[in-house]
Amino acid sequence: MGAMRAAGAARGVALAAALATAVALAVAAWRRARPVREVLFFPSRPCCIEALLAEAAEPGAPARPCPCPLPSGDTALSRLVRRLLSARRSLDLCLFSFSCPLLARAVQLLHRRGVRVRLVTDAQYMGMHGSQIGRLRHAGIQVRHDQHSGYMHHKFAIVDRRMLITGSLNWTTQAIQSNRENVLVVEDAEYVKAFQDEFERIWEEYNPANYSFFSERQ
Amino acid sequence: MGAMRAAGAARGVALAAALATAVALAVAAWRRARPVREVLFFPSRPCCIEALLAEAAEPGAPARPCPCPLPSGDTALSRLVRRLLSARRSLDLCLFSFSCPLLARAVQLLHRRGVRVRLVTDAQYMGMHGSQIGRLRHAGIQVRHDQHSGYMHHKFAIVDRRMLITGSLNWTTQAIQSNRENVLVVEDAEYVKAFQDEFERIWEEYNPANYSFFSERQ
Repeated sequence: MGAMRAAGAARGVALAAALATAVALAVAAWRRARPVREVLFFPSRPCCIEALLAEAAEPGAPARPCPCPLPSGDTALSRLVRRLLSARRSLDLCLFSFSCPLLARAVQLLHRRGVRVRLVTDAQYMGMHGSQIGRLRHAGIQVRHDQHSGYMHHKFAIVDRRMLITGSLNWTTQAIQSNRENVLVVEDAEYVKAFQDEFERIWEEYNPANYSFFSERQ
Repeated sequence: MGAMRAAGAARGVALAAALATAVALAVAAWRRARPVREVLFFPSRPCCIEALLAEAAEPGAPARPCPCPLPSGDTALSRLVRRLLSARRSLDLCLFSFSCPLLARAVQLLHRRGVRVRLVTDAQYMGMHGSQIGRLRHAGIQVRHDQHSGYMHHKFAIVDRRMLITGSLNWTTQAIQSNRENVLVVEDAEYVKAFQDEFERIWEEYNPANYSFFSERQ
């Protein structure tokens, strides 16, 4: 009787363990499959994202501590950078103003890693003091801009044609550190498609082959 | 036999009609219940929204044709105005720049109709040429603004604590008519809560009781 009870108890424990493992696996799978839905508010708390950039540049390389005094915790900026650095195939950027050197480094890094980066920006803002557009063009990234009096005022990014990052935030250090801003990060096929279509429309419209110049109009 | 066949056919027709009605009712109920998920892109095609404003001011009153030559069709602007005018209890506005007279009329109309309107804006932009903030304050609408060097750069509205309207669009005529802009309209409890919480934080932070003045600092 004692041996039978012990065998029964052992079977019970094994069953419970198997059940617990199955539940844990199901939860992990659900977490992986659950689409991203994130709202980020700025100003971001000050933070250092050097470790994030280093890890993206050389995955698995031993971490070198950054000498700056800023914490490298979880902030709106670090979350934004993480989402951007998750790109594997493509990054489509539609940005009114892009003068934040940190975000430019992240974009350049993706370009070097072989991610296809396309950038649409505003003609009147791309030459402003501190603009990163020239640096990105110099690095070989394709950039197109408008030719209108109206602004190309969007501030969105699409990662791998899968994740939309959009809001009020221009990619400037002032906006990240000092302004009240919002950014939505969504993996939602319907929203991504609407913004991807808008990106492709603008990309074609701003094709340099369509630019008109004053001399041609004479 | 003929009479039986005719009766059978009549029963069949009645059953089909009842089924069709049930399906139509179910579809209508599903449409009503389905949360709003809309993406609006600007510039908006030119349109006249006088009929929309008149209907909101005096529901059911006979329509008076507007003498302007613009069409009154379905555009990004008319959709935005329709969503705003659907407010019944509250409208919380968090707007960097508000100089579009048409949108100011829509907001004033809601205020007159008894909707509780609260408006947060940016101190440096509220005094700009064409700003509607003075007019709205004069109409009795509560307005609060920041006291910082950073911008209050949000551009969102929350209708009845239920529908979020957010994007890149400042509420200016230039943005609506000339810029490339986006606006998301979503009835999504999670996103609404995040933005409503941000609104309440800012509303409290910008309480005039917290303002500091130069003379006090001396």
